[in-house]
Amino acid sequence: MAPKNRKRIVIIGGVACGPKAAARARRRDPSAEIVIIERGGNISYAACGLPYYIAGTVPEIGGLMTTAYGAAQDAAFFDAVKNVQVRIRAEAKAIDPKRKSVRIVSLDSGKEENLEYDKLVIATGASPVVPPIGGMNLKQVFLLRMPEEAADLRACIEGGRADKAVIVGGGRIGLEVADAFGAQAVETTIIELADQLLAGVIDRDMSDYVANALRAEKVAVRLNEKVLRLEGDESGKVSKVITDQGEIEADTVLVAVGVKPNIELAKAAGLMIGATGAIAVNDRLRTSEPDIYAGGDCVECAHRVTGDKVYAPLGSTANRQGRVIGDNVTGGDSVFPGIVGTSVMKTLGINIGRTGLTEDEAARRGIKTVVALSPGPDRSHFFPGGKNILIKLVADKESRKILGAQVLGPGDVVRRVDVIASVLTFGGTVDDLAELDLSYAPPFATAIENVAHASNIIRNKLDGLSEGIRPSSVRERIAAGEDFVILDVRTPHEIQKAGIDDPRVCRIPLSELRSRINETPRGKEILVLCQVGARAYEGARILRGEGFDDVKFIEGGLNLWNSTKPPEGKF
Amino acid sequence: MAPKNRKRIVIIGGVACGPKAAARARRRDPSAEIVIIERGGNISYAACGLPYYIAGTVPEIGGLMTTAYGAAQDAAFFDAVKNVQVRIRAEAKAIDPKRKSVRIVSLDSGKEENLEYDKLVIATGASPVVPPIGGMNLKQVFLLRMPEEAADLRACIEGGRADKAVIVGGGRIGLEVADAFGAQAVETTIIELADQLLAGVIDRDMSDYVANALRAEKVAVRLNEKVLRLEGDESGKVSKVITDQGEIEADTVLVAVGVKPNIELAKAAGLMIGATGAIAVNDRLRTSEPDIYAGGDCVECAHRVTGDKVYAPLGSTANRQGRVIGDNVTGGDSVFPGIVGTSVMKTLGINIGRTGLTEDEAARRGIKTVVALSPGPDRSHFFPGGKNILIKLVADKESRKILGAQVLGPGDVVRRVDVIASVLTFGGTVDDLAELDLSYAPPFATAIENVAHASNIIRNKLDGLSEGIRPSSVRERIAAGEDFVILDVRTPHEIQKAGIDDPRVCRIPLSELRSRINETPRGKEILVLCQVGARAYEGARILRGEGFDDVKFIEGGLNLWNSTKPPEGKF
Repeated sequence: MAPKNRKRIVIIGGVACGPKAAARARRRDPSAEIVIIERGGNISYAACGLPYYIAGTVPEIGGLMTTAYGAAQDAAFFDAVKNVQVRIRAEAKAIDPKRKSVRIVSLDSGKEENLEYDKLVIATGASPVVPPIGGMNLKQVFLLRMPEEAADLRACIEGGRADKAVIVGGGRIGLEVADAFGAQAVETTIIELADQLLAGVIDRDMSDYVANALRAEKVAVRLNEKVLRLEGDESGKVSKVITDQGEIEADTVLVAVGVKPNIELAKAAGLMIGATGAIAVNDRLRTSEPDIYAGGDCVECAHRVTGDKVYAPLGSTANRQGRVIGDNVTGGDSVFPGIVGTSVMKTLGINIGRTGLTEDEAARRGIKTVVALSPGPDRSHFFPGGKNILIKLVADKESRKILGAQVLGPGDVVRRVDVIASVLTFGGTVDDLAELDLSYAPPFATAIENVAHASNIIRNKLDGLSEGIRPSSVRERIAAGEDFVILDVRTPHEIQKAGIDDPRVCRIPLSELRSRINETPRGKEILVLCQVGARAYEGARILRGEGFDDVKFIEGGLNLWNSTKPPEGKF
Repeated sequence: MAPKNRKRIVIIGGVACGPKAAARARRRDPSAEIVIIERGGNISYAACGLPYYIAGTVPEIGGLMTTAYGAAQDAAFFDAVKNVQVRIRAEAKAIDPKRKSVRIVSLDSGKEENLEYDKLVIATGASPVVPPIGGMNLKQVFLLRMPEEAADLRACIEGGRADKAVIVGGGRIGLEVADAFGAQAVETTIIELADQLLAGVIDRDMSDYVANALRAEKVAVRLNEKVLRLEGDESGKVSKVITDQGEIEADTVLVAVGVKPNIELAKAAGLMIGATGAIAVNDRLRTSEPDIYAGGDCVECAHRVTGDKVYAPLGSTANRQGRVIGDNVTGGDSVFPGIVGTSVMKTLGINIGRTGLTEDEAARRGIKTVVALSPGPDRSHFFPGGKNILIKLVADKESRKILGAQVLGPGDVVRRVDVIASVLTFGGTVDDLAELDLSYAPPFATAIENVAHASNIIRNKLDGLSEGIRPSSVRERIAAGEDFVILDVRTPHEIQKAGIDDPRVCRIPLSELRSRINETPRGKEILVLCQVGARAYEGARILRGEGFDDVKFIEGGLNLWNSTKPPEGKF
């Protein structure tokens, strides 16, 4: 039945972007007919909360499906509060853009109908990639498509049926579930095909610290390993994961090898699909059809640093897009300016955040970068309770613009990521970042904020005041048998506790370096080492001042040196 | 003796800016002679840490005087590591800019000498204002000028000689010491001359929450009260504070009525002093004399939002300025772009941050503003451990630019302040702030970040979608006997727990508002109320959609309503 006087807005997908678009559209247009079509049994739930429900941190799955004031966000709620019709367990089968209608089937009754629309919103989300391996149908193999599956997984854990888990895929979901398994004392192995965890999210060097942190918490991390198939026992329950390097016993398997946008409906309707494989939209979130909008995990977005289209599904982005769509389907003209690739997560005691471009992403674009590796406490060193964070800051060598950052550690990662994300968005330089007037008080920050310190490292490099070398490069050069001096300028007390055992190491505390300058070997390249890098930089400046030409400081110092030694290191 | 071949840089002041300038100058110039003159007995200490030492949070005062790696930052350290001469207990008596020399007197020997300079740095800091009242010399009356005084105060507390303290002045230092006294179970009264705490730092409405939070922690807060004198007992120890409203028993008094820049030396040398009363410097931190630079708590800075010069002494600013000065006294050309007025503190369980302009500051400049009051949890509501924060965001009504923000509450205030400070610095609008790609994961944030939510409230107001009214205005209008309806749209369960007891209140849960629209009184102004403001906004939209014209939502809802009732409210 065609809409008569009232405009009809049909929204396909009821998790994040869809309900937000519906709510916003209603606030702007009191009279439109608004219909949400949702294939699953729930709407408007916090899918990002599922790992914390599995962990037991969120006690009830219902908690993910209520408002902040405790009201269930179900069809009745949307009807009563928003005057939005919700049809759950209804699947959109086809869109006819010419006739402006959607064919819908009820998954319960099998009944089909055509629903005409004035404006259509596609918010079909994404689905886990199902790898083409045998055994995916075994019991206790999970993909976490829907809240029901998370409930099943937690029931397995609480019923004592999940003691030994394998997570296939070392990406964000894999690591969040590893955290949940850790909280539930489930023995966990992560198998990752790539040579690093969080591939495409953080650089390889940063991922080493993550792998070390997981190993320190007794999570087995197996990289460069390909899962061939899953095998089950006689009861049809998974019992083994077979890889190209052996087999691992497991009573529970989570497969999290990525997600793909749900584009089938859009594609079949002839809508333009972007090179990323997600639905193409303009900055108003309109698809290639004028009356069809799309948002959330099924679309690609503009990256505000590069201008490229990227696929970066995230609940926060979906919400922002829902608001823009709600405006634009009710006569507004709102713009979604894009993203800068910010994401954050926690896993087993460390927080991991990133924004902008990684060093690797910048290199692949041919951008020349300058990088700082800056470890340090997240508040004044004299204030108790401070925790470490490591900032990797990446700037453009020519323009001095901030390109991106990765921040990790047990400390307050999120604040630094958010500040850098803000500066990135405005095209700010390392100088801008260093000169921000950020909060300072001893319980919260250091007088020179960590992000300013990282910026200053880059400024010193750009201005020729310092040259750094990364611990990983020093290790490689030691392995290659190269000749140079490592000058350890820490105190004897520190040296007693830990150090580098190598004949290249020469030890002079920074406080004695000026008076013992004659003991410093001349004519050789000198790499200065301390605990976190600041004294090494100072030592390198002293040596330069004394006429030593070939001097570098080891970035991040011994803190990062140890963490690049995979088996026992801990950030 | 005149410097011969080596350039000589003399720095007056050894706490924050001075040592930083010295260290930076040394890194850039290995050969210059660098001398720091410090009147006190210590250098390079964390003065901002003193309240935490008094609290016992920082166990040893020495902790404030060491590097992060535990080395004492004394004269020997500066000599050995930085090749910087430090003269402690030496006072600069006069500067002769023509002859480029400083007259110095040793406070121990009384010996005077003239020290010539090529470049001079004035980093003389600030001193507590000493009010012109009697009794300031009594025992256990503290001003916290120097670390020694903090040590004395803590000794009094630990020796059982401080049971009843009065803090004269409800500014930042006063509240930080109130926090310290709270940690040490010292009974505390704060007396403030102004009609609010943190006058000039946060707006009056926000200060009410702070006062309530302090009162909830048993701190007596007395506003609009003038201290006339301090009285002592026969032993010469303070025993009473006499005010224009009575007398308060006290065995310990902290006087913290503000700080003033130490400009006497600069003024006597004919250097230009700004209208703020602090030393005037240009954006290179050069004074009106070409070879004299100044930084830290004795100078005024440019405010990057208004362009005005302001006096805003802070340790973090002093450090940034020290770096710029270190560059510029060694042939560099670095710019200090100014500040945006960011500050943060904690007191008795609440964190208080601010950046940019307050609503009041903007109004005094004749700027028309739009304001959001947005309370909410600092992470996803379903994730345990979230704590509330209240954001007051102020934007320019014409340009939509963010002017400033105040954030307070037990939750993560600092991150939000820093993000807003970053956006302010780049001249960003509420739209820019709302569309930032900030970190999201349930343990850290909500899918719609608190700062985006506050921005959206302002956008809705600017775009005519909503009209808000503050709880304080509603209270005033009730007191004035005005006629209107307060429509409480919370659930019956919530209403049972708390509410407003007034005949104007009409109660219809949001979920029933559409179906019971006929019960809503027509022809009267309707003010919609809920717990935090979001449902009230939604309710107001529903009423507008149903043809009600005169509808406003009560901003911040019952959360802020209760907190505006001073005696028992708690944020």
